[in-house]
Amino acid sequence: MNTGPDAVRPTSHMRMEIAEQPAALRATIDALLPRAAETAALARDTRQVLFIARGTSDNAAVYGSYLIQAHAGRLATLASVSIATTYRSRVDLSGVLAVALSQSGQTEEIIETITWARDCGARTLVITNGAGSPLTEAADLAFVTQAGAERAVPATKTFTTQLAALAVLAIGLGADLDPGQLREVPSAIEEMVVGTAAEPSDLDPIVTELAGVQGVVVSGRGLAYSAALELALKLKEACYLHAMGISYADLLHGPIAVVDAQTPAIVVAANSGPTLDGTVDLARRVTGAGARAYAIGGGSRLASASNRALPGPELPEWLAPIGLIVPGQLLTEALSRRLGLDPDSPRGLSKVTQTA
Amino acid sequence: MNTGPDAVRPTSHMRMEIAEQPAALRATIDALLPRAAETAALARDTRQVLFIARGTSDNAAVYGSYLIQAHAGRLATLASVSIATTYRSRVDLSGVLAVALSQSGQTEEIIETITWARDCGARTLVITNGAGSPLTEAADLAFVTQAGAERAVPATKTFTTQLAALAVLAIGLGADLDPGQLREVPSAIEEMVVGTAAEPSDLDPIVTELAGVQGVVVSGRGLAYSAALELALKLKEACYLHAMGISYADLLHGPIAVVDAQTPAIVVAANSGPTLDGTVDLARRVTGAGARAYAIGGGSRLASASNRALPGPELPEWLAPIGLIVPGQLLTEALSRRLGLDPDSPRGLSKVTQTA
Repeated sequence: MNTGPDAVRPTSHMRMEIAEQPAALRATIDALLPRAAETAALARDTRQVLFIARGTSDNAAVYGSYLIQAHAGRLATLASVSIATTYRSRVDLSGVLAVALSQSGQTEEIIETITWARDCGARTLVITNGAGSPLTEAADLAFVTQAGAERAVPATKTFTTQLAALAVLAIGLGADLDPGQLREVPSAIEEMVVGTAAEPSDLDPIVTELAGVQGVVVSGRGLAYSAALELALKLKEACYLHAMGISYADLLHGPIAVVDAQTPAIVVAANSGPTLDGTVDLARRVTGAGARAYAIGGGSRLASASNRALPGPELPEWLAPIGLIVPGQLLTEALSRRLGLDPDSPRGLSKVTQTA
Repeated sequence: MNTGPDAVRPTSHMRMEIAEQPAALRATIDALLPRAAETAALARDTRQVLFIARGTSDNAAVYGSYLIQAHAGRLATLASVSIATTYRSRVDLSGVLAVALSQSGQTEEIIETITWARDCGARTLVITNGAGSPLTEAADLAFVTQAGAERAVPATKTFTTQLAALAVLAIGLGADLDPGQLREVPSAIEEMVVGTAAEPSDLDPIVTELAGVQGVVVSGRGLAYSAALELALKLKEACYLHAMGISYADLLHGPIAVVDAQTPAIVVAANSGPTLDGTVDLARRVTGAGARAYAIGGGSRLASASNRALPGPELPEWLAPIGLIVPGQLLTEALSRRLGLDPDSPRGLSKVTQTA
């Protein structure tokens, strides 16, 4: 029973959907992992991957891009949607596997862009939670995630199941990764969301401190960068916070100037992997500049370099982003309510976004 | 003679370097345009372009990416530097023209990444203002911009000359563009910086209003997106402002929630082209939400949809970003001084950034 300051508020859809992620991930992995070989066949005559996405799906694509480049030896980059939809240019996409992501499968510019990619010579795959949606008809192959209905506008379980689908894609493309580790993800996420039905004791002081800031920088690098970007987007959507999601390398190229006593940094890293050292250094640089640093993940080293810390998942680096976003989701939901907002229905947003 | 509130401060290096851009552009175009054919020869066996850059150079790469895709029929995307420098993965880059941008030509991770690209099978080109720098030795071909020495930390003339070099690259790659229009750019920029030695009357009220905000969104789309990103970076670097550079399509997918009475939007567009309509719509949506919109460029339509406006350059859409950043540079420099900061030496930054 939550007896803290938010006890009087009803539980949000967002909070319930955060807790549904272990089941959603289990169902998605069960459905898609046996189909990894289909992507191998589809990609046989291609050399590279081009992701087509917007918003949260774009953050998932960042994960896919790093995963495929770091582990499957293929170039994997992000498309500029307006080249297809606004400039209507023809681009040579022979040898390209175009992968479109859209939770609803209804977003017209994504449908239009994957159709354009096919017309430009690409092989095509879509990843969507919208079974039977128009997007599933627009590509050579469709991976449908099994997140179930998502009612809160800020995406949670549709994001993490996209990441799981992208892990299957990387395995299909021959990545040097163990599918058995992917099967262990739902249990690892379960450990993170069970016992946090009330505000966890380490979340509450961070919520209190963030309720008083005007802006925050959210930083990570490599695979964890996707989780940093997604947390920044969540904080913007549901808390109206000026949250800058940025790789720590880019941060040092200018924007580090905004970090100060009024502008903390949230630093995100897996418990292992080649970007952990740099993230620890970043946390030290932030606190050295007189700003607060909050760690998500990164084990004891990142925690001890930061002012406060939320533990990340017990997962290998390549799967860690699926769990690293979870404390961020819980933080966003709690902060939104603390600010007197409704995390389920941010102003100005709807569940399916159409861009004119 | 400036008799406004900033009259007592000496002119900054940044302000002088903004004014040097017409000469810097003229010298760069004179030097590089005759060499367009060299890029054609280098790119003969390639199908696509992959940009390698950080910070301001990354914003220039965004311009190059849209320009080449919209006008030269080639895929052109941005590389993830950490794949080379942190993950040290091999990626198949056959058929790729890798283009690295670095103003100094000294940034080690950029040198390391273009070297990696060559080892992975790419043809390589570098664009730098550092004549004789290590970067020029690392590639098949080097385009050296003629910006001269830049003393202010926030890049101005080294950015716009990078854009000119990218325009030459696009022409070399067979873009359907008139090189004669590129030769007219320096005169168009001259008209924008002459007569603004003091604060121009339309700049001053915007500086006054922005001095009181906690954050700002800077938005554009397509080719103009590069100028929006670069203005956001300048405002972060020199004014410590939470400036979110974002395409208007992405803005509508979540972050639009942060725009409110305390958070204005700066909207950037060429005076013509396919993204103008959407930018006008965005300005209307911002003002409709009770927030202020400031236009840069976009002609009379964007100006009348916004609360205040700074005129953009008289240039075709494909060259407009070179001029669209100029009012943003002037705005940044004036706002930095208004806030009591030194635009030449932001805290935490140095001219050559090395990422560990």
